[in-house]
Amino acid sequence: MTTTIPRIVVLGAGYAGIMTTKRLLQQFAPEEVEITLVNKHNYHYQTTWLHEVAAGTIDVNRSRIMISDVINTRRVNFVQDIVKKINTDNKQVELENSTLDYDYLVIGLGFEKATFGIPGMEHAFTIQTVDKSRMIRDHIEYQFSRYKTEENPSDDMLTIIVGGAGFTGIEFAGELAERVPLLCKKYDIPRHRVKIINIEAAPTILPGFDLDLIEYAKESLTRRGVDIRTSTMIKEVKKDAIIVGDDKEEIKAGTFVWTGGVQANRIVGEAGFELTKGRVNVDPMLRAPGYDDVFILGDCAWVTNKETGKPYPATAQIAIQEADVCAHNIRTLIFGGTLQEFVYDNKGTVASLGGSEAMGSIFEGHKIYGMQAKIMKHVIDDRYLFMVGGPAFVLKKGKFRPF
Amino acid sequence: MTTTIPRIVVLGAGYAGIMTTKRLLQQFAPEEVEITLVNKHNYHYQTTWLHEVAAGTIDVNRSRIMISDVINTRRVNFVQDIVKKINTDNKQVELENSTLDYDYLVIGLGFEKATFGIPGMEHAFTIQTVDKSRMIRDHIEYQFSRYKTEENPSDDMLTIIVGGAGFTGIEFAGELAERVPLLCKKYDIPRHRVKIINIEAAPTILPGFDLDLIEYAKESLTRRGVDIRTSTMIKEVKKDAIIVGDDKEEIKAGTFVWTGGVQANRIVGEAGFELTKGRVNVDPMLRAPGYDDVFILGDCAWVTNKETGKPYPATAQIAIQEADVCAHNIRTLIFGGTLQEFVYDNKGTVASLGGSEAMGSIFEGHKIYGMQAKIMKHVIDDRYLFMVGGPAFVLKKGKFRPF
Repeated sequence: MTTTIPRIVVLGAGYAGIMTTKRLLQQFAPEEVEITLVNKHNYHYQTTWLHEVAAGTIDVNRSRIMISDVINTRRVNFVQDIVKKINTDNKQVELENSTLDYDYLVIGLGFEKATFGIPGMEHAFTIQTVDKSRMIRDHIEYQFSRYKTEENPSDDMLTIIVGGAGFTGIEFAGELAERVPLLCKKYDIPRHRVKIINIEAAPTILPGFDLDLIEYAKESLTRRGVDIRTSTMIKEVKKDAIIVGDDKEEIKAGTFVWTGGVQANRIVGEAGFELTKGRVNVDPMLRAPGYDDVFILGDCAWVTNKETGKPYPATAQIAIQEADVCAHNIRTLIFGGTLQEFVYDNKGTVASLGGSEAMGSIFEGHKIYGMQAKIMKHVIDDRYLFMVGGPAFVLKKGKFRPF
Repeated sequence: MTTTIPRIVVLGAGYAGIMTTKRLLQQFAPEEVEITLVNKHNYHYQTTWLHEVAAGTIDVNRSRIMISDVINTRRVNFVQDIVKKINTDNKQVELENSTLDYDYLVIGLGFEKATFGIPGMEHAFTIQTVDKSRMIRDHIEYQFSRYKTEENPSDDMLTIIVGGAGFTGIEFAGELAERVPLLCKKYDIPRHRVKIINIEAAPTILPGFDLDLIEYAKESLTRRGVDIRTSTMIKEVKKDAIIVGDDKEEIKAGTFVWTGGVQANRIVGEAGFELTKGRVNVDPMLRAPGYDDVFILGDCAWVTNKETGKPYPATAQIAIQEADVCAHNIRTLIFGGTLQEFVYDNKGTVASLGGSEAMGSIFEGHKIYGMQAKIMKHVIDDRYLFMVGGPAFVLKKGKFRPF
């Protein structure tokens, strides 16, 4: 007779999945549990850097981290495969090439674009994966190249529209403001022919941010040639244009990138978990409602801030903090004790605006701008690299180089 | 009363135009003639390097030389403009923005693609200008990027067809053989999914080359994954495929590059000069038939080899040698003496096959291969750079670095 040890399966090696796996390794001795990590690729990527990949300001490989470099694969069973279906009835996960049984399941499968029913959204690019972000960079360059070789090119080919002025939209627009002048030089195209338009349905950019920070970002982007249009609803997306507003104004563009909304990976809804605005409204212990053994983290989860009653934004910082609670709670479920509730410890938020521009708030509302904010942003990025890979990793992949 | 000095107008700053301008500066004192050079861009480019730009193995700027860096613009009136029409009746050249009068005209306006009536040739890319060559590089990368982001991508997107296995076709296929493995690595695509197909209507590649050299090139390219198909006629070009042979086989491909034929810039035919297979059959002094004052050089000219009765191929080496004769003959027409006939001095021909591979013949048929040929190729390239810009230029732009 064989005794079986609890099988923990982690789906997805994003911020939530990779940090949960690392915390589980710390929580358990090798013989106590069997840990399996499933991911489509053999690499983890820094989603928070993908807007830079998409703009072409950093190379793809800067944003990639090999999983075997940061996870002890002698203790973790790493399976490179695609999740097809989660079956909670018999506690199984179907992959493209095999099936896994679990006792505890951690779902960190990330987001896909929320289209809000806008027709034609299949024409939109999204800053979602390494491949899709690189596609944006390549597409923009392709438009510049076509512009230089077509018989009677239209300037519209060079127009780049960013849909959504939330965190990602603003960060991406900021990178474009830096990148476009370089592309203009590379392709011998006058800068004034290229338009960067950022469209937002809300009356302000960066909803939820402090007004001072919003003003700073707006001024910085506008000064560097980003045309920001708030209170503007996108009604339809076409192959080479978008339609906005009640009077259905058509804005032609060679590139349209949608950053306006995310929702949980479709696998989550297909598994039967109830969705709130496209995500799973987890309990304070981060479990799917009605399930003791299924944790849902990161962009798949809707976590309510008890003080405000509003959900937390889906950020890397939150995903990483969720991983701590999730690993602790799995240990508690196996060995007993008290389950932890998730409480967000806001260490500050800094938005990069391209080049040496950034802004944000740290330490309970202390606001920072410009180079100071940029350095803090690098510190935050490097802190994560340190957590995930130790000091050598910060030197290898980090952005802030102390020497 | 003003005395006028002869006005020499050189159209095009390719190999023929730029070297003719340099030779004219040597032949004449500043007060003897007025020299005007007209070119679409403010740069000259190394047409012989464009296949490398197209494959992505060298950067665009390596192939570009600023005209003001190599031509004394205090002595030469440089006009950056586009030639619209040559009017030999009143000895005028119409540019987009002005009109020039000439006493002696030198036409070095280069080639455009000869399509031989193949339908759909507008879908073909050509290795023709800096912009068009970069378009090929960008297009190929775009196909790789799309392949990684489309729902159900077809491997056909990754197929690259090179039409024509003459000098340019073979050199380009060789560069692709080097470039594709790097692209596969960059985009995480297995090499075997990418096809490079070189199609030639003649029964052999490199028609006119020595059989040993042909065999060497064929083996080198085939070994590195180029599928060479000779005796194969292209019947039609579609947006995503070509049709070949009498049984109309369809070969799907994401990229089709035509290197199979060139003819004179259309301006030449429109000016009324009689064309032989798309080029002007100039007299031995390199003048257009029936004109004492119009010289036609480089890819626009059909120059017959008196010994064989066949035309010389349109190469950089011939264009450069023609420039000497042209400049001498203009001086003779102005100051008297005997006009020179053009005689080709074959200094050897070396074809680069990508990476460290090359082959060719030098010194009356002495054959060289591999690294030796590659070095010789660099020596040839650098010799031109030396002629056009002096020793500093060889260090700045040259390929063969002695230290």
